[in-house]
Amino acid sequence: MIKASIVGGTGYTGVELLRLLSAHPEVEVAAITSRSESGLSVADLFPSLRGHYDLRFSEPDPDQLAEADVVFFATPHGVAQAMVPEILKREARVIDLSADFRIKDQQLWEKWYNQRHGCPELIVEAVYGLPEINREAIRTARLIACPGCYPTSVQLGFLPLLERGLVLPGDLIANSASGASGAGRQAKIDNLHSEVSDSFKAYASGGHRHLPEIAQGLESFAGKPVGLTFVPHLLPIVRGIHSTLYATLLDASVDLQALFEERYAAEPFVDVMPPGAHPQTRSVRGSNVCRISVVRPQDGDKVVVMSTIDNLVKGASGQAVQNMNIMFGLAETCGLEAPPLLP
Amino acid sequence: MIKASIVGGTGYTGVELLRLLSAHPEVEVAAITSRSESGLSVADLFPSLRGHYDLRFSEPDPDQLAEADVVFFATPHGVAQAMVPEILKREARVIDLSADFRIKDQQLWEKWYNQRHGCPELIVEAVYGLPEINREAIRTARLIACPGCYPTSVQLGFLPLLERGLVLPGDLIANSASGASGAGRQAKIDNLHSEVSDSFKAYASGGHRHLPEIAQGLESFAGKPVGLTFVPHLLPIVRGIHSTLYATLLDASVDLQALFEERYAAEPFVDVMPPGAHPQTRSVRGSNVCRISVVRPQDGDKVVVMSTIDNLVKGASGQAVQNMNIMFGLAETCGLEAPPLLP
Amino acid sequence: MIKASIVGGTGYTGVELLRLLSAHPEVEVAAITSRSESGLSVADLFPSLRGHYDLRFSEPDPDQLAEADVVFFATPHGVAQAMVPEILKREARVIDLSADFRIKDQQLWEKWYNQRHGCPELIVEAVYGLPEINREAIRTARLIACPGCYPTSVQLGFLPLLERGLVLPGDLIANSASGASGAGRQAKIDNLHSEVSDSFKAYASGGHRHLPEIAQGLESFAGKPVGLTFVPHLLPIVRGIHSTLYATLLDASVDLQALFEERYAAEPFVDVMPPGAHPQTRSVRGSNVCRISVVRPQDGDKVVVMSTIDNLVKGASGQAVQNMNIMFGLAETCGLEAPPLLP
Amino acid sequence: MIKASIVGGTGYTGVELLRLLSAHPEVEVAAITSRSESGLSVADLFPSLRGHYDLRFSEPDPDQLAEADVVFFATPHGVAQAMVPEILKREARVIDLSADFRIKDQQLWEKWYNQRHGCPELIVEAVYGLPEINREAIRTARLIACPGCYPTSVQLGFLPLLERGLVLPGDLIANSASGASGAGRQAKIDNLHSEVSDSFKAYASGGHRHLPEIAQGLESFAGKPVGLTFVPHLLPIVRGIHSTLYATLLDASVDLQALFEERYAAEPFVDVMPPGAHPQTRSVRGSNVCRISVVRPQDGDKVVVMSTIDNLVKGASGQAVQNMNIMFGLAETCGLEAPPLLP
Repeated sequence: MIKASIVGGTGYTGVELLRLLSAHPEVEVAAITSRSESGLSVADLFPSLRGHYDLRFSEPDPDQLAEADVVFFATPHGVAQAMVPEILKREARVIDLSADFRIKDQQLWEKWYNQRHGCPELIVEAVYGLPEINREAIRTARLIACPGCYPTSVQLGFLPLLERGLVLPGDLIANSASGASGAGRQAKIDNLHSEVSDSFKAYASGGHRHLPEIAQGLESFAGKPVGLTFVPHLLPIVRGIHSTLYATLLDASVDLQALFEERYAAEPFVDVMPPGAHPQTRSVRGSNVCRISVVRPQDGDKVVVMSTIDNLVKGASGQAVQNMNIMFGLAETCGLEAPPLLP
Repeated sequence: MIKASIVGGTGYTGVELLRLLSAHPEVEVAAITSRSESGLSVADLFPSLRGHYDLRFSEPDPDQLAEADVVFFATPHGVAQAMVPEILKREARVIDLSADFRIKDQQLWEKWYNQRHGCPELIVEAVYGLPEINREAIRTARLIACPGCYPTSVQLGFLPLLERGLVLPGDLIANSASGASGAGRQAKIDNLHSEVSDSFKAYASGGHRHLPEIAQGLESFAGKPVGLTFVPHLLPIVRGIHSTLYATLLDASVDLQALFEERYAAEPFVDVMPPGAHPQTRSVRGSNVCRISVVRPQDGDKVVVMSTIDNLVKGASGQAVQNMNIMFGLAETCGLEAPPLLP
Repeated sequence: MIKASIVGGTGYTGVELLRLLSAHPEVEVAAITSRSESGLSVADLFPSLRGHYDLRFSEPDPDQLAEADVVFFATPHGVAQAMVPEILKREARVIDLSADFRIKDQQLWEKWYNQRHGCPELIVEAVYGLPEINREAIRTARLIACPGCYPTSVQLGFLPLLERGLVLPGDLIANSASGASGAGRQAKIDNLHSEVSDSFKAYASGGHRHLPEIAQGLESFAGKPVGLTFVPHLLPIVRGIHSTLYATLLDASVDLQALFEERYAAEPFVDVMPPGAHPQTRSVRGSNVCRISVVRPQDGDKVVVMSTIDNLVKGASGQAVQNMNIMFGLAETCGLEAPPLLP
Repeated sequence: MIKASIVGGTGYTGVELLRLLSAHPEVEVAAITSRSESGLSVADLFPSLRGHYDLRFSEPDPDQLAEADVVFFATPHGVAQAMVPEILKREARVIDLSADFRIKDQQLWEKWYNQRHGCPELIVEAVYGLPEINREAIRTARLIACPGCYPTSVQLGFLPLLERGLVLPGDLIANSASGASGAGRQAKIDNLHSEVSDSFKAYASGGHRHLPEIAQGLESFAGKPVGLTFVPHLLPIVRGIHSTLYATLLDASVDLQALFEERYAAEPFVDVMPPGAHPQTRSVRGSNVCRISVVRPQDGDKVVVMSTIDNLVKGASGQAVQNMNIMFGLAETCGLEAPPLLP
C-alpha cells in the first residue's frame, strides 16, 4: 500500500485527487493539508466524500507529509517551490500539479509568473509528467511536474504531426476552450454562475501562462522552434477542455488517421476516434482519457485536430495518479479504469 | 422628462435598472453611484450597455443625488437607512430596492437582519411597493420599499386565496426556487459556476430573511395570523423565480381558475395562464410579468399555485420602475412593454 | 461471474447500466438488445464506453437473453410485460427498471398507464426493489420491479416518519424536481436544450404517473391510507432528483435528526446529513447514494425533509445493480463504491 | 404602418421575429403561417408572447401573404424558393431568412444543399442582406437573402482586413461556436438538453453548409479567391455565436485597432471593443449588435479577431428587421434599440 499526502486539498484538483485515490486499490491517503481549513473534516467541505474519508485538513508539516511515499501538491504556483526541497530531503517523492517546475527556462518562468523562482536548482531534475512522452523518465523521477490542462490537450493533439515533421512548425494555432473548474475554487466575480452561465468568450488572447509551457513541449517534439498562436476560451460547463488545432501540412499524401492511430495504439489513455467522429467533452467527463479526432477539411493543406480531456483528470489529478502508477511500478491504469459519466 | 439617480449601480439590480431605464421614454438617468468603482465608465463594467450610456460611476453625494426627481437604492440592506432622510429632505422621492423599509415591525427587522435599524422614523411612512395591493398609496408616496423577489412571487400567488378567506391560513407552504442572480454580484465560492451549475439544492430551510416579509404580506391579505413554511432553493439558471404554493381549501366548490382570472383581470403585469398550463421562468425572462397557474390536483382539498417572475425585473428593478410610473402619473406599463426573451 | 443481459440498451438507463456494470468485478454483460440499433457497436453510440465494451446491439431473442443469469429491462413500460414470462420460464431472473410491475393494483396501473396490463399473473410475485424496505424478499425474488426515480427519493424521505406514525398521513406534500435525463433519450421538442436550459417549471401537476406508485409505498409504511400531493418539476440539469417533503408532526417532541440517523444507520446507500446541511444533487452525481436532511422550521409543527438522488443511479440503474447484488449474494455495495463526481 | 407577414412561424427565428416586431413602432404583423400548427394561437405556442399578439397560425396562402408590404420567410431551405415568385408577382417585398438565395453560384448551392434549386431565375436579383456591405442595394431590393448566423459573425470579423488587403487570403481560419438554438426547434436526439448541456464539441469539421456562403463573402471583400478553414462547434448555451478568426498579416505595421474602429465608426450595429477587451456572447444577448475585438498576440504576424452576435438576432431575425428598416426608409435602428439582456 502506497501512502500519499496531499498539500492544498481544498481546491478542485485536491478534491479530485481524493475522489480518484478513494477508488485506487493500492493507495491510502495519509494526510491532506490546508492552512485555511485546518481542523475541518474533508467530508464536511466536500459532501460527495462522506463515507469515503475520515480525514481532517491539517496544517502542512514537512515531517508529517514526508512520512508518505508520495506527496502531491495541489496548490497555486509558488507553494511547491518553497516546500519541495524539504520533502525530497526526507526521501518522499513529489508530484507537483502546479506550474512551478513545468518550464525549463527559469527566466521564462519568472517572466510569465511574475515572481522569482524559489527553487531553481530542482528545475532541471523535475520530469515533465506527460507519460506519452516521458514514461521512462517518470519511472525513476523524484519530482514530477504535472502538465497543465490546456498544455496536455494541445500537446497530445499536435504530437504525432510534429514529431514526424509533417506540418509547418511556424504556423500552429491552438483554439482551446475550458470549463469553469479550470479557474479553480476561488471567490472571484468573473467566475460566478451568473457571469459564466449561458455565455462564452475568449480571454487572455494576448498571452496566457500556458503558452510558454505548450511551446516548450511542441518545440521538443519538433526539434526546432515553433510559432504558436494560443487563444483560450471560457466554456459554461464545469469540466472539460476542448482544443481545436490547426496546422499546415507539408505533405498532403500522409494518411492522418493511420498516423494518429499508430502513434497512440499502445497508449492506454489516448483514444483516436474513428474518421468522421468528433470528440465531446462529456465523453471524457470524470475519466483520464484524451479523445482525439483528426480531419483534413476539403482535402486541402490544413489539418484540424480536435483533442478533448477532463481538465481535472487527464488535465490534472488523473494524470498525477497516472504518473504515480508509473513511478511505483503499478499498472498504469490502476484506479483509473472507470468509464466517463455520460450523460 | 423624469430625472433619476441610482445609488449602488454595480450589482445585478443596478445594471438591470439601467437596462430598463435606457428603454424608458420618460426617464433620464442623471447619476449612478458606486464607492468601489467611482470614475469607471458604466459601459466598461457592463459591456451590454455600450452605446446606451455615457455615464461614469460617482461617489454618492446626497446633494447631487437629490437633484433628481427620484432616487433608486440598489444597495445591500443598511445603506438606504443611512441616506434616505437626507434625500427626502431635499424633496426627491425614493424607491428603495433593498430590504430596509419592507418590514413594519422594527424589532422583527432587527432580529432577522441582525442589526439596529438606522432610520425607524420612516418605517411607518414607507409604502410597500406591490402595486397589485398598494397602488393608491404608491401614487403619493415619498418612500417606496420595493418587495423582495421571493415575496413578490409568493404574495401574488396566495393573494386571491387569502383575501377571500378560501384556505386554511395556518397551513401555507411556499416552495420557491431562484436563479443564481438572486444571490447578487458578490465574490463568494458558493455562487461560483462550478458550484451552482448542473446542481440543485434547498438552502436556509431553517429560516430565510424573506420569511417575515412574506408572512407580513400574507397576514395583511388574510386579516389574521398565518402559518407559513417557506423553503428557498437555488436553481442553476441566471434569472427567474418559481414558487410552488400549497394550501388547504376550506371550500372545494370555488372555481379557482375564475377566481384568479378575475382578481388579476385589470392587472397589467399579472398573467393567469389557461387551465393545464404551467408557467416557465423563461416565459418571463427579462420582463415585468408574473405568470400564475392554479390547479387542484385530483380534485382534492389542496390547491397548488405556481407563480413565476424574473427576479431581477418584477422581483426588483422592473417593479421599481412600475412604482416610479405610478408615482409620476405615467402609464403603468411605460418602458416595460417589451416581451420576454424566449428562447 | 454473473452473466447479465440488457433489453433496451439505447436509453439513458441502458448506458448507465453499462457504465456501472463495466466497473462491477462480478458481472459480465453478455448481450444488449435494441431493435432500432441492432448491429451497431455500443461504443459507437456511446463514445464514453469506447474501450470498455466490445458488444453490439442485437435483436431481442428470449433464448439468447435467458442464457444470462439475470436480464435487465431498461425499456419503456409495456415491453417487459410481454417478454418477462418467457425469460422466467428459461430460469433467468429479471430486474425490470420500467413501471410494468411496480403497482400492485392492476386496475390502478391500467388507469394511469392507459393500457391493458399484459402480464397480470406476475404482478403479485414481483418484488418492489427498494432494498431499504424489501431486502429479504429481494434475495429470493425471480422478478424485481425497480422503483421509479421520484418514488425512490420521496419514499426514502417519508419512510422514517410514516413507519413510526409521527405525522398526519392525510396531508403529505412532495415537491420534487428532476434533471432532464429523467425524460429519457427521446426526440421531443419539449426536451431540447433550447427549451429546458436556463429555465424551470412544474409539469403534470394535475397527476403524474409516479403518484400512485409513491402513494402505494407510503401507505404500506403508514399501514393506512395517505393523502399525497405530488408536484414534479423539470430542472435544467442532466442528472439528479431533489424532493422537498412537507408533513405535519403529530408529536413535536421527537428528535427528528436521531430518528433519521437511526433508521438509516445500517443502510449503505442512505446518508443522513448533519443538522443544518442541505443535500445537493451534485453531491450524489453518478453514485447510488440518497442523501437526506431533515429540519423543523422555526420549531413549528411542520417537518421538512430534503432527499436527493441521481435519478439514473439510485433512481434507476444503480438501484437495479444493488438489487442484483442482493439477489446473487454479493456484497450489496459491490461495484457501487465509487464516490460521486463533484464538481 | 408597414404590414408584415411571416411564413413559418413556429421555429426560433419565427418567434424571435414576433418578439422584435412587437416592439417595432412602425410594423404590424398581419399573418403568420404554419402548416403543422394552423389554427393554434401564437400565444399558446409561445407563452412569452401572451398579451402581445392576438394572432393564430394559418395555412400559407400567397394571396393573403402578399396583402402585406413585406413577407418574411422563417422557413427551412427549399420553402422560399417555391413561394417567392408568387409573392413578388403580387408586389410584396420578400426578406428570406433561409439559405435559398444566399449563394450566387447555383451549382454550388445545389451541391451543398443536395437538391435542385427551385427558382434559379431570382438568384441574381436577390440582394445579400448584410447591411454593412450592401446597404444601398438593400434599399431598393425586392428580395433579400438574409445572411446565415455563422456567416454574419465571420464576415464582419474579416471584412476590415480583407477589403484592405492586409492579410494572406489563402490562409484564413474561422473557429466558430454556436448556441443550441442555431440548430432550430426540431425534435432531434442530438439537440436534447441531456446531450448538449455541460458539454462541448466540434461538428461538421469536414464541411458545413455555411462554408461556401462565407467564402463567397470573403472573396468579394478580397477581390480574389480565399482559402478558408471553418470549424463550427456546439455551445451549451441557448443564444450566441462567437467566432475566433485567425489570419496572417502581410504588413505588421498596421494599427489594427484603428482600422476596425474606423471601418465600423458609422455602423449602428457593429461595436469594436476597446483594446484588451474580449466580447462575450451574453453582452449581445437579445440585441442586434455584433461586438468585435482584434488582437495581435505577442506582436507576431498573426491577427486574431473575436466576433460575437446573437444568432437569432443579428444572425437572423434582427438582421431581417434591419433590412426591412432600410428597405422602407425607416431609421435603421428602429425597433432594435433595446440593450442586451445581461446577466
